[in-house]
Amino acid sequence: MTDNINSNSRPQLEIRRVSLDTGRENVVVISRHSNALRPDIFRGFSRVELRRGSKVLLATLLITDEDALVGTDEIGLSEPAFRRFAEPAGSLVTVSPAASPESLDAVRNKIQGRIFKPVEIESIISDIVHYRYSDMEIAAFLIGSASFMTSGELLALVDAMAKAGTRLKWPEPIIVDKHCIGGIPGNRTSMVVVPIVAAHGLTIPKTSSRAITSPAGTADTMEVLARVDVSVEEMKRVVAACRGCLVWGGHVNLSPADDILISVERPLSLDTREQMVASIMSKKLAAGSTHLLIDLPVGPNAKLANANEAMQLRKLFEFVGDHFGVEVEVITTDGRQPIGNGIGPVLEADDVMAVLSNAPGAPADLREKSLRLAAHLLEYDPQLRGGSGYARARELLDSGAALKKMQEIIDAQGPSGCRNDLGKLTFDILAADDGVIAEIDCLQLNRLARTAGAPIDKGAGIKLLRKIGDRVERGQPLYRIHAYDQSELDLAVAAARRNSGYAVDGEHLPASEATP
Amino acid sequence: MTDNINSNSRPQLEIRRVSLDTGRENVVVISRHSNALRPDIFRGFSRVELRRGSKVLLATLLITDEDALVGTDEIGLSEPAFRRFAEPAGSLVTVSPAASPESLDAVRNKIQGRIFKPVEIESIISDIVHYRYSDMEIAAFLIGSASFMTSGELLALVDAMAKAGTRLKWPEPIIVDKHCIGGIPGNRTSMVVVPIVAAHGLTIPKTSSRAITSPAGTADTMEVLARVDVSVEEMKRVVAACRGCLVWGGHVNLSPADDILISVERPLSLDTREQMVASIMSKKLAAGSTHLLIDLPVGPNAKLANANEAMQLRKLFEFVGDHFGVEVEVITTDGRQPIGNGIGPVLEADDVMAVLSNAPGAPADLREKSLRLAAHLLEYDPQLRGGSGYARARELLDSGAALKKMQEIIDAQGPSGCRNDLGKLTFDILAADDGVIAEIDCLQLNRLARTAGAPIDKGAGIKLLRKIGDRVERGQPLYRIHAYDQSELDLAVAAARRNSGYAVDGEHLPASEATP
Repeated sequence: MTDNINSNSRPQLEIRRVSLDTGRENVVVISRHSNALRPDIFRGFSRVELRRGSKVLLATLLITDEDALVGTDEIGLSEPAFRRFAEPAGSLVTVSPAASPESLDAVRNKIQGRIFKPVEIESIISDIVHYRYSDMEIAAFLIGSASFMTSGELLALVDAMAKAGTRLKWPEPIIVDKHCIGGIPGNRTSMVVVPIVAAHGLTIPKTSSRAITSPAGTADTMEVLARVDVSVEEMKRVVAACRGCLVWGGHVNLSPADDILISVERPLSLDTREQMVASIMSKKLAAGSTHLLIDLPVGPNAKLANANEAMQLRKLFEFVGDHFGVEVEVITTDGRQPIGNGIGPVLEADDVMAVLSNAPGAPADLREKSLRLAAHLLEYDPQLRGGSGYARARELLDSGAALKKMQEIIDAQGPSGCRNDLGKLTFDILAADDGVIAEIDCLQLNRLARTAGAPIDKGAGIKLLRKIGDRVERGQPLYRIHAYDQSELDLAVAAARRNSGYAVDGEHLPASEATP
Repeated sequence: MTDNINSNSRPQLEIRRVSLDTGRENVVVISRHSNALRPDIFRGFSRVELRRGSKVLLATLLITDEDALVGTDEIGLSEPAFRRFAEPAGSLVTVSPAASPESLDAVRNKIQGRIFKPVEIESIISDIVHYRYSDMEIAAFLIGSASFMTSGELLALVDAMAKAGTRLKWPEPIIVDKHCIGGIPGNRTSMVVVPIVAAHGLTIPKTSSRAITSPAGTADTMEVLARVDVSVEEMKRVVAACRGCLVWGGHVNLSPADDILISVERPLSLDTREQMVASIMSKKLAAGSTHLLIDLPVGPNAKLANANEAMQLRKLFEFVGDHFGVEVEVITTDGRQPIGNGIGPVLEADDVMAVLSNAPGAPADLREKSLRLAAHLLEYDPQLRGGSGYARARELLDSGAALKKMQEIIDAQGPSGCRNDLGKLTFDILAADDGVIAEIDCLQLNRLARTAGAPIDKGAGIKLLRKIGDRVERGQPLYRIHAYDQSELDLAVAAARRNSGYAVDGEHLPASEATP
């Protein structure tokens, strides 16, 4: 329809900045009594096109009678729209009904069962990162792809996503990286692995995510110790100086399409194997990784319930890695319970520093898992004798070399300035019966830690006092909830009383004694 | 997550009505500095749950710094949210992150290839009509269903949709109805067919839609002559008095799920056979129709391009009709060009009244098509001799009985009060060459009529002066554009100059003369 509207003869509207946070989506607001357009023809939540000179912005339209928000000769641009259109308030724009992006035709065909051509996927991803798709249109792409995706489509998707943002180049020939598909609370192995590997001398420029639905991401936990929202240039300086870094990926703009797709997948709880692989591999290609270790936790409450699911996913990672010339190794790990003792940024950072400093109470599972992962990564070093990775990793950890490296990285990234004391308000959740801990529900512990305030309150979270296999007596504590805020502590305690997340089995006697 | 939050201990917010037209979707606005919740935990465009006593509303959240819109102890409800929550401004509510509706699990499974159970479809439709789904979630349901739908799923969908709103009951055993799948400009046969059939004595309570993407729906055109936004009770009174009516379906709340699904299908341009059949059949079941005639126009610019597509759709209509005990007859008609001479409400109403009053210049194609459709419907009368439907229809039209009936219906529905003069600003689009009209692009003429102001401006539109097969000389008019507003006329003229929508072939000489 757009081509039928001669924008020159349309009256123009003045841009006004409207402080509405509309998430990722561009939203604009016009008055129902606007002088310049016929709002009856437009409708709430329809799509419009703003034009000023050669600049074009697609946005979702809201219509309002609130005079305080926009006048009749104004158009209100919500925060993301204002930022992206990047024209000063008061500038004149024309507004017309927007045609859908052309690439949406391919999405419609895909929904009808056709296969995408690589060039179509490239156009779609380009339109998405230029904010030309509405959330609903992004959902159409994701859902149309979710039911069936050929291996050719997957490769094209990874390629298009990796190309759509920053691509890092490194002077070293070997760039190692690790990634965990997530879901396990406290699993902060990266913060132990990176200093070990960097201390050895391999380059490991690690970018991590912040928590989305969990109580802490690696970036949130690292932020307790150092600044993580660094630019690409700062990241390169840190890596040049230290061989490794631990920064937030969001600031570095690797695979921006992935960030957008995830923001739509999350509310719809879409989580297909292909989309997970595309997400991870596009980020790693953009990050310039040459050797990549993938950690797949398997457990009843983990993302992968059994070895068969893990194997299917492993093959997909290997297939994509081979195509793009990235050395990919995939290992499965124990995902039955949290790793370490803390859940929440400060508590997790405490675990990490305890392991790095070989403190007496350091969690053995976090240490062992980190050593195992580091061992795999170290063996990418051609200089290292085959099979000696584990011993080398332990040497670097036990000698304090890894701790020293971590301190260098922290100093290079600088202080974050965020509040990082442990929450002083606490409550202990007690065992209701004698017995042995049989099961820990990772999902429920994640929820409790979030309810207590993590990750916004860095010092909120859960300190585990018992893990699977431990014996406990009635009235002994299972875990301690920490919070900054009394009302949040109360909410978390109430939720824990309804469901502690722990299953305590009665003590099982040996069979010979149980049956006389 | 919801079950972990004890809403009693949450501070409450005061409802404020915010005049934001957010289309169908519930939207609420809170201040970034809200006292009562932690907006950092929520994000723009996430979903929240409002609760007051036992009342619950799901809504999409916007966060704002505009003090004029909401204070820190307020929550702003956009127009649809305010209307649906139906609590006075100033009432206190709690707000918490919303869990997705449970029925969304079935949607996720469908996306992964599972078949819906009927009870799942029923829950989904119920959640949708109670505004518990976001637009994105509705899109997920539609797209998940678009690629593949079993006949069992289709039947369950029709059933659930028909049950979700008003269901009309009529005292007569035979309730006839007709429906056209649309796409052809000027195709106002219902306004001729209803008076003929009602004049014969059969009951035909016709509900119609307003234009969504076309320049006029039957409801828009009828509104030139009479009020169409009548309630169910008024509709029943009109039908009791006249045997027929021509009202807007939107006011009668038949299959409200359909209205919602269409509002999401439209921006995504989703248009599958199954969804079309579910939409139409659910409305007809809810309307209490027992005998239904479906008109499928076929043509290069019509929704159906060829006879094969039409046959597949016909089978689907017959299958659903048989299951629900509705006598369905499906006919294909000529969809190569507009029906009648007018496009736009006033011009179309003129065509209709010319046919009903047997005026000399009445468009023959509208008359013939209407007689043909009426003939089929009349033969549902057991009293009528087989094969005599057409003659009876012509008798009722030629005798003026149909015109008299139309006048009764108009009087019973009452005057609409809308402006109904023909647009006085006109411009003729002329033939650029001598020749014979070979093709008329229905889509382009629809766009031009809309650009000229239809259907908002009832008197705007296009008067066709030539149709396919007519001879035309260079400089002779093809059609006349009418408008109320000069700038809209200018836009339509500029668009018509770029693409008139007419293809004029050079005069084809008989083969014997062309080759000497």
